[in-house]
Amino acid sequence: MPDLHLLSPHGFRAAGIRAGIKLSGKPDVGLLVCDTLASAAAVFTTNKVIAAPVKVGREHVAAGRLRAVVVNAGNANACTGARGERDAKRMCALAAHAVGCEPKHVLPSSTGIIGHHLPMEKLERGIVDAGRSLGRDQEHALLFADSILTTDLTRKAAATEFRIGRQNVRLAGVCKGSGMIGPRMALPGKHATMLAYLTTDALITPALLRRLLAEAASGSFNAVTVDDHMSTNDTAVVLASGSSGVKIDSTRARGAFAVALNEVCRSLAHQIAADGEGATKVVTIAVKSAASDDAARRIARAIANSPLVKCAMHGNDPNWGRIVSAAGLAEAPFDPDRCILTLQGTVVFRNGQPVAFDAEKLSAELRAKEVRVELTCRLGKGAATCWTCDLSKEYVTINADYHT
Amino acid sequence: MPDLHLLSPHGFRAAGIRAGIKLSGKPDVGLLVCDTLASAAAVFTTNKVIAAPVKVGREHVAAGRLRAVVVNAGNANACTGARGERDAKRMCALAAHAVGCEPKHVLPSSTGIIGHHLPMEKLERGIVDAGRSLGRDQEHALLFADSILTTDLTRKAAATEFRIGRQNVRLAGVCKGSGMIGPRMALPGKHATMLAYLTTDALITPALLRRLLAEAASGSFNAVTVDDHMSTNDTAVVLASGSSGVKIDSTRARGAFAVALNEVCRSLAHQIAADGEGATKVVTIAVKSAASDDAARRIARAIANSPLVKCAMHGNDPNWGRIVSAAGLAEAPFDPDRCILTLQGTVVFRNGQPVAFDAEKLSAELRAKEVRVELTCRLGKGAATCWTCDLSKEYVTINADYHT
Repeated sequence: MPDLHLLSPHGFRAAGIRAGIKLSGKPDVGLLVCDTLASAAAVFTTNKVIAAPVKVGREHVAAGRLRAVVVNAGNANACTGARGERDAKRMCALAAHAVGCEPKHVLPSSTGIIGHHLPMEKLERGIVDAGRSLGRDQEHALLFADSILTTDLTRKAAATEFRIGRQNVRLAGVCKGSGMIGPRMALPGKHATMLAYLTTDALITPALLRRLLAEAASGSFNAVTVDDHMSTNDTAVVLASGSSGVKIDSTRARGAFAVALNEVCRSLAHQIAADGEGATKVVTIAVKSAASDDAARRIARAIANSPLVKCAMHGNDPNWGRIVSAAGLAEAPFDPDRCILTLQGTVVFRNGQPVAFDAEKLSAELRAKEVRVELTCRLGKGAATCWTCDLSKEYVTINADYHT
Repeated sequence: MPDLHLLSPHGFRAAGIRAGIKLSGKPDVGLLVCDTLASAAAVFTTNKVIAAPVKVGREHVAAGRLRAVVVNAGNANACTGARGERDAKRMCALAAHAVGCEPKHVLPSSTGIIGHHLPMEKLERGIVDAGRSLGRDQEHALLFADSILTTDLTRKAAATEFRIGRQNVRLAGVCKGSGMIGPRMALPGKHATMLAYLTTDALITPALLRRLLAEAASGSFNAVTVDDHMSTNDTAVVLASGSSGVKIDSTRARGAFAVALNEVCRSLAHQIAADGEGATKVVTIAVKSAASDDAARRIARAIANSPLVKCAMHGNDPNWGRIVSAAGLAEAPFDPDRCILTLQGTVVFRNGQPVAFDAEKLSAELRAKEVRVELTCRLGKGAATCWTCDLSKEYVTINADYHT
C-alpha cells in the first residue's frame, strides 16, 4: 500500500504553509484537523523544563477530545515565561477560529530554538493561511509533514491499513526529530524535541487510546536516542476520528489496533534514528535475558548513548570493549562473565572472554546502513531494544553553529 | 615552586620505560616504588565490568599497605577472563621481584584497548627494565608520568608543599585520562580509564588516607567528564611514605593535608578535562543553591554530558536553551522559574524568562580556554562543580578509528 499517508484515515484534513519563521523559507506552520471532535491522547516530555505549548497542550488534551493540532517549526517557545504561554494559547485561538471550534480543542506544538519569543505576527498570518489551505489529499499530508521539520533531512511518515472483522481501519503518522533526541515521554499527570502526530479512523475511547499510546511510545519513541538530550517540547499525539465506524471494543480489536499503532510508532522512531543529526547508519541495540525489562532498557540505553560506541560505529570499528564497558556502567544488574555479545551476528565476547573473529571481515560488515548489536545477559527474562545512530563530524558541524 | 614533582615527597623512586606495547614506541611501562612499606589507599571504578588489574589491586590495597605500583599503557587487560587475572598477578610478581618485596604489596594498573590479552613477554622484559631504571629525580618522575598516557596529548602532574606546624610536607600526583572519562570511583568494597598516582611523605594511617582520598576523589576525579563513559580500569591510588616524619593526627594537620590532597586532585582532574579527546577548552559547570549536593551534582553532570551543550561550547555559541533543558532532564529537583543562568558572568536566563544580552560579545567571550557556566537554582543549599570539555570534530577522528 504505497499510497497510504497521514490523511488516509477518514475524517482528516491538513495543511502546511510558509510563514517565514524558518530562515530557510521552508514550510513552518502546520494544521491538522479532524472533521469531528476526535477521541485524543498524547504523551509529553518528562523534562522539568517544559515548553509553553506542552503546558497548554497537556490541559487541552486532558478531557480526551481534540479537533485540531497547530504546529510551528523554527521556534520552540520554551523558556519564554508567561508571554510564551499567552502565545501558545493565542496559537490555539487562531487555529480554533480557522477551524470553527473551541480553543480548548486545539493542541499546540512548537519546535526550534529555545528562549526566543514566537514571532506572533508571522504566526497569526500563517495560521489563517493554513486554515484556508486545508485539504484531504496526499499532497496536503506531505506539506504538513514538511512543516514540522527542523534540522531533519528527511520527511518521516508511516501508515497502515488493517482489518477488524470484515472492516478496514487506517492508522497513520508523521513525525520530526533529528537532534535533541532522547525522549522519555509519559502521559500528562506523571508527566521528548520530537513531535509525532498520528491519525486513525478507528472508533476508540480516549481512555483506551491513552493507554495504548503510552504503551506504544515506550517501545518506540522512548526507545530512540540521538544525543540523550530529552527536549522541553517532545509530544506525540493521536487523534481518532471514528469515521470508519469500527469500534475498538473487543479484545481482538484492541489487539489489532495495538499492533498497528506499535508498527507505525516503531517505523517513525526508526526514521528518527536514521535521520539523527549527522547519522550515516542506524544502530539497533537489542538486550536479551536481562534481570528485568527495566534493566534491559537501562543497559541498551547506556550502550546507545556512549559517544565512544557511536564513534566506533561510525568508523566501522568492531571495538566491542566499549560496548561491554558501557553495559557495565548502566544502573542495572550485569555480569560480564555470563554475557554474550554479537555484532552483526558475529560473537565477539562470551563468558568474560574475548572470542577470536576476523576483524577485517566484521569491519566490512559494519559498513552497513543497519547495524545490530545484540547482548544476551543470561540473568533473567528482561528484554529491550533501542535505536541510535553513529556519531560523525557532521554532528559537530550541525550543532556547533546552530544558533549564531 | 616550579620544580615540585611526583618524587618531591621523600622516600620514592620511579621509572618509565619503552616495552613496545604502544605502537607509537613511547614509554609504556611505569614503576613507582616507596622505600618503605607505605600507608596506602585507593579508589576504583564502580563499573560492573572490572578489569583484571582492578580486581587484583582491590585485594592488594585492602590491608592499607603497598610498596609499589606497576602500570602498563596500550592494553587495558579488561574483559580478558581468568588469563587476564593471572597476567595481572604476574605483573605484581615481576615488580615485586624487581623491587624486593612481596607481590601483595604491589598494585597493578593497565590502560588501553579492552579485550586483548597482555603481551606478557614484552611486559616481563619491561618490568625488569623498569626495576633497573629507577631513580629519584625529576627526569624519572616525568618518565613515569609519560609511561601511563594513551590518547593523552599532554603529561599531567601536580604537586604542593605545605606546612604542618614548623615542618614541611610534600604531596604530588600524576594522572592520565583523555577519553572514556566519566569516573565514579569509590573505595573498594562498594566498589573510574583514568589513572592517578599520588605520593606524599606525610605519616598517615591507611584508614585516614582512605577516607581523605574518597572525599578528594568525589570533588575532583569523579567531577570530570569527557564522554561520561566510566571505564573498566579507573584507579586513583595514594602512597604515603611517612619519610617527612610529620604525623597527620591532629584536626589541624588533617585539615592541612586534606586541603593539599584536594588541591592536587582538582588540578589533575582539570588537566584531564583540558586534555579531553579533541578538546579546545575546559567548561566548568558550577551549580549553586540546589536542593542538595547530590541534586547539584546530577544537574551539573547532565549539563556537562550533553553533546548539544558541548558542541555549542565548541562553536562559541551562547545557545543557553540547551543548558537549561539539560538541567531539567537531570533526576533532581529543578525549577526553571526560579533559576539564574550565567555564561562567562553574563546573565542569560532568569526566573523562567530569557534575559536580553549581546550575543556577539558573549560569543567572543566564549572563545576562551576556560568557560564558566553558573546555574543558581534557588531551591536549597546544595552545590557542585564539574569540569568537561567541548565536543569537536577531532573527537570523532580520534574515536572512529582507534582500534582498526
